[in-house]
Amino acid sequence: MNEENIELPKALTAKKDEDFSKWYNQVLVVSDILDKRFNVKGCFVWRNYGYEIMLNIKKIWDKMFKEQGYQEMYFPLLVPLEYASMNDKWWNSFKDQAFYVKGLNEKKHNYILRPTGEPAIYPMFSLWIRSYRDLPLRVYETVSSFRYETKHTRPLIRDREITVWHEIHTAHATMEESKAEIKNHMRMWDKLWKDLCLVPFKVNKPKEECFPGSVGAVEYYSIMPSGKIMENGSCNNLGQAYAKKFNIKFKKPDGTEDYAWMTCTGNGGRLLAAVISVHGDDHGLVLPPKIAPYQVVIVPIFNNKTKSKVMKVVDSLFNDLKSKGIRVFVDDSDESLGSKLYNWEIKGVPVRLEIGNREVEKGEVTLFRRDLREKTSVKIEDLNVEKVLKEIEEELLSRAQKIFKEKIVEAKNIDELKEVLKDKKVAKVHWCGSTECSEKFKEIEDGVELFGTDIEEESEGKCVICGKKTKTIGYVANTY
Amino acid sequence: MNEENIELPKALTAKKDEDFSKWYNQVLVVSDILDKRFNVKGCFVWRNYGYEIMLNIKKIWDKMFKEQGYQEMYFPLLVPLEYASMNDKWWNSFKDQAFYVKGLNEKKHNYILRPTGEPAIYPMFSLWIRSYRDLPLRVYETVSSFRYETKHTRPLIRDREITVWHEIHTAHATMEESKAEIKNHMRMWDKLWKDLCLVPFKVNKPKEECFPGSVGAVEYYSIMPSGKIMENGSCNNLGQAYAKKFNIKFKKPDGTEDYAWMTCTGNGGRLLAAVISVHGDDHGLVLPPKIAPYQVVIVPIFNNKTKSKVMKVVDSLFNDLKSKGIRVFVDDSDESLGSKLYNWEIKGVPVRLEIGNREVEKGEVTLFRRDLREKTSVKIEDLNVEKVLKEIEEELLSRAQKIFKEKIVEAKNIDELKEVLKDKKVAKVHWCGSTECSEKFKEIEDGVELFGTDIEEESEGKCVICGKKTKTIGYVANTY
Repeated sequence: MNEENIELPKALTAKKDEDFSKWYNQVLVVSDILDKRFNVKGCFVWRNYGYEIMLNIKKIWDKMFKEQGYQEMYFPLLVPLEYASMNDKWWNSFKDQAFYVKGLNEKKHNYILRPTGEPAIYPMFSLWIRSYRDLPLRVYETVSSFRYETKHTRPLIRDREITVWHEIHTAHATMEESKAEIKNHMRMWDKLWKDLCLVPFKVNKPKEECFPGSVGAVEYYSIMPSGKIMENGSCNNLGQAYAKKFNIKFKKPDGTEDYAWMTCTGNGGRLLAAVISVHGDDHGLVLPPKIAPYQVVIVPIFNNKTKSKVMKVVDSLFNDLKSKGIRVFVDDSDESLGSKLYNWEIKGVPVRLEIGNREVEKGEVTLFRRDLREKTSVKIEDLNVEKVLKEIEEELLSRAQKIFKEKIVEAKNIDELKEVLKDKKVAKVHWCGSTECSEKFKEIEDGVELFGTDIEEESEGKCVICGKKTKTIGYVANTY
Repeated sequence: MNEENIELPKALTAKKDEDFSKWYNQVLVVSDILDKRFNVKGCFVWRNYGYEIMLNIKKIWDKMFKEQGYQEMYFPLLVPLEYASMNDKWWNSFKDQAFYVKGLNEKKHNYILRPTGEPAIYPMFSLWIRSYRDLPLRVYETVSSFRYETKHTRPLIRDREITVWHEIHTAHATMEESKAEIKNHMRMWDKLWKDLCLVPFKVNKPKEECFPGSVGAVEYYSIMPSGKIMENGSCNNLGQAYAKKFNIKFKKPDGTEDYAWMTCTGNGGRLLAAVISVHGDDHGLVLPPKIAPYQVVIVPIFNNKTKSKVMKVVDSLFNDLKSKGIRVFVDDSDESLGSKLYNWEIKGVPVRLEIGNREVEKGEVTLFRRDLREKTSVKIEDLNVEKVLKEIEEELLSRAQKIFKEKIVEAKNIDELKEVLKDKKVAKVHWCGSTECSEKFKEIEDGVELFGTDIEEESEGKCVICGKKTKTIGYVANTY
């Protein structure tokens, strides 16, 4: 069996603040998100509950992408080597971490499993794009990506099969259009992050860290409770670089030819990893209402004598909520009350309603809000679940904003910078922009790096490494 | 480039009745379902229009499976050899047609790409099932399957990457429950086929043709216009055979242990292949309303003077249809009227509404029904698109039923049997049930076989091969 998986936790015993990594791994199991015991390093089984959460996230992007006119397609997982090697920069970066594939009697490995979409998609763009009339071309797909990771794998954060991965690829007639396109990607990601009650840390990525062969990128990061930052969606400006490698040319209205201006962006399970990590607590998952498989669970409490009376109220409430489009479930199973309450709490259901004889006689329900872990009694006629769900969203988002702000701390020199990192936070520094200095950040500690520069803010200051005057603000942290 | 793909048809020139295979390949391209030029044998790119059709089919099964309580999960595509070889019968049948995978520096191929779900799913069942309380376990997933096909590949019919494949796997405490489960699978498939306006040919599969290691199966077949029959969904009874190989045991209420009784079933793009083949005509696709990306396309016809008048009616009609939940699109692009009409016809849109000045002045629309290829004028106040869509469904289903009946012809002896096959039809024969005789059918012609026996009907007769008395009715045809 997989080294990581010898023991399955039965309960959530780790504390998020004390041992985040242990807590994270326990939550994945006890909340029934996934099973890591599948015996391939870096691959896991999505359990039903976790997969439904992920599919709810997918529903948000599917709706958004289609409304915005992106065309959903599907490209094969097997990429022939001749496509994979068309862009040497891409190939040099991925050939060591590719999975190589052959049929039983094939002498050579003629294919790899797609590590990213470009070499599967752009040879087709080259066939489809002939004229300016074919542009813009805006395509997306949801698919698995594969990386033969040699580093330590972590479910949803660093996997060998990256599941439910979605990516957009576009081609345009002008640079301006491609830049406007990237703005649109950012607007969509911002909306998606808001639906997840999360705050993205958006930075310009240092040139040498950008997607191989691209000309620039805005990267979305999550600041994790461990203080480490996690890449969580790139908006890549490919310029004409990929078009030249894949021969994606179009005829302009004036009859001359030009290469297409291209962009790509994508993300996957790391969105869920951020949801779990940012919102979760020592009692398990805390799910944002928009992606919770059940937004409300009703737990009836009765004995033989009170059953029909209680269930009458429960059924009526269930039908009422369902008719309003709320995802609601009645847990009338034979489990003990204690284990029901434990189960729905650890699974992060936003609202739990308990209804027993006492409640029925008073015309009330007992409402448990998962985010606050508070029980209140509410008159049935005053119950407004939609409003409560809205309030939960606001609470989760405002907490995430607070954590986000607290996690970024200015550092004026190397000593302050080291203090910030020791404190599990992200350092905001002035940086001269040189590669020499960015290399120096890496020497501070294994995993530390300058991961990006501010996308808007500039101010006078001195590089914390070399002391040279600069306006550029950079961010330094431990990275995944 | 892929041998099959050197020339792309620009128009549908082949006739379905004269050269079905050529017609099929042309339709896939000109209707914008897929692009075969991706340079891996047996793999293709789903174009947006085709993928939306497939996703609409997927929506039907997702809804149905979830309503029936099947739990959607996702299992990795990489299957370790140790799992793959647990059932020797399965392994012997798939090891030659598996894709073998390794990381760059791995010495051996430690994994295959899943050819079917069992070896990925059942090792987990073995971990999850402990007690009768864990049963029944009813799981489904939608995923790609991979076969290193050495035979001639055909898009959607025989692929190396079988995309949008969905499969159900269940485990039960008793044989009776597992048999009831199979009945439920059949009820669901029957409903899905009806939504596609198709008629399945359901037979009991001869034992030696069943899924490797299983104990029996009801197979769904499509009778294709070529007279060949195509497997289109198996309902497999696995008995306890797989449970024994994968050690899937449970404790019964009385404390003793038993192996689980298991079933599986699945299908994928062949459903769409049948839709295309059965309903399509020499003018392209004919889509059943339930899966058409657009159920209605409105084509406005105007000049500068009449534009605002026409578009007012078009917009109001669009909003009206949309509010009724009908998938509707207004084609006000700059294309010529001729190419618009051609495009939506070849794409099989069930209803096309043409609205020009003439129509507006009369308070009418011109309604084109794709199934009948008939135009009628309809007063706007009398227009009932939902009713028309319903009628189209009925028409397509009744045509499919007619074709189905005509395609099955009784044969009393070998000569009659040969005549039926020559006529591109399926022969209904008496068969003694022996392997010797079923082998004889195969000698008639390459590809011919006895593919199943009637699931209900029995009658006195003599085996068409050996003349022995028998009640068993079998079916013989050319197969894919």
